Amino acid sequence: MAITRRTLVYDGPGGPFEGVVAWDDAVAGQRPGVMIVPNVLGQKEADNRTAERLAALGYVAFAVDLYGQGKRTTRESPDPAVYMNALNADRALLRDRLHAALAALHGLPEVHPDRTAAIGYCFGGKAVLDLARAGAAVCGVVSFHGIYDPPPYEVSRIGAKLLVCHGWDDPLSPPDSLVALGHELTRAGADWQVHAYGHTGHAFTDASVAAGGRAGFGYQPDSDRRSWAAAVGFLAEVFT
Amino acid sequence: MAITRRTLVYDGPGGPFEGVVAWDDAVAGQRPGVMIVPNVLGQKEADNRTAERLAALGYVAFAVDLYGQGKRTTRESPDPAVYMNALNADRALLRDRLHAALAALHGLPEVHPDRTAAIGYCFGGKAVLDLARAGAAVCGVVSFHGIYDPPPYEVSRIGAKLLVCHGWDDPLSPPDSLVALGHELTRAGADWQVHAYGHTGHAFTDASVAAGGRAGFGYQPDSDRRSWAAAVGFLAEVFT
Repeated sequence: MAITRRTLVYDGPGGPFEGVVAWDDAVAGQRPGVMIVPNVLGQKEADNRTAERLAALGYVAFAVDLYGQGKRTTRESPDPAVYMNALNADRALLRDRLHAALAALHGLPEVHPDRTAAIGYCFGGKAVLDLARAGAAVCGVVSFHGIYDPPPYEVSRIGAKLLVCHGWDDPLSPPDSLVALGHELTRAGADWQVHAYGHTGHAFTDASVAAGGRAGFGYQPDSDRRSWAAAVGFLAEVFT
Repeated sequence: MAITRRTLVYDGPGGPFEGVVAWDDAVAGQRPGVMIVPNVLGQKEADNRTAERLAALGYVAFAVDLYGQGKRTTRESPDPAVYMNALNADRALLRDRLHAALAALHGLPEVHPDRTAAIGYCFGGKAVLDLARAGAAVCGVVSFHGIYDPPPYEVSRIGAKLLVCHGWDDPLSPPDSLVALGHELTRAGADWQVHAYGHTGHAFTDASVAAGGRAGFGYQPDSDRRSWAAAVGFLAEVFT
């Protein structure tokens, strides 16, 4: 096994965009492709490492960029959410950028075009739910500590399978919003599951967010491990 | 591997009780023990088959009896819920019978006394939640389409880990009751997870309950498969 990366610059509304593709170059032929949609801060090394973990499972993994080349923030930025807020305010643009990223994934010669999925964290969790809501041609999506408010555009039937990994104490996604999501996904006819974890807040997969800082936020190693195992099993299921 | 059964008659309040133990007699020495708590109908062949599935995983499995020797019903009985209703009306007695069954499991020479767990279906799902609420010495419990109303006795800290496998459309356990359970288990300091499945009703693991009969009830093969896989992984985790 030799996990390899390359930078991929691709077009779309507001682009160009710059993401990173990871794959195992000991694997021959087409294989499933998985998009990773970053959190509020945008494309970064943590996402590329997630791509490498997925590549080690035999997938082509693509850590995408929704903000545009060079547009990233850190927790120390004056406004870490500046790019996220702009996209949150224009869910149709978010949708169109997601479609552009998916088209770039579909365009990779190593990717089987009928076998793609997307996972996302925080704002990226919301984004992959929107990808499913928009009827994108993906087999499945996994949201980790996503946000559940529906987009303003009409959602008809959702064909992608969904796994929603949820921290019960997440103040950005309180139980009421989770229940509303359950009803929404049911109305849309989706094959959906929610895994809810007790004593778990927002960003529970993110080891860079210390637990015990801001209430309802922070890394939770049990929930991180359990949700990753669930996602790995889910991806295997949707690609069979 | 040679999966073997024996009938176990044991004492307790309202007893004697009669359950079935299954184990792999190719395995030597003490191993984890798992109680199976039946649904409304009481101890029956379906529970013994579940015990055999757990025995094949290397556990000593014990399909318990909460009603008393000879007290069982079928779907065709004049009142299939007659024994369940009596126990539902006396949650302290339910608790005491659960403790009696657990003591019987702990008394088996093949069972490691520090490594036990319980799974349950429907009323048995409620029962295993009560077992955890009562502070029983189990490592973990799994509820499949259980009922979530708390018992009238005081629950302090819950030490057992909990996995709650939940059908979103279950009319016996609507979303409000699931949310209340999440808050209850959080207050009790428990390590808890809920797996909620869309388009899934009560009795989703039970192939004898036809889907499309009574609204919100019926076998759902995807949720049956997913919840079993989750339970198998959970048991492996709580016994490590």
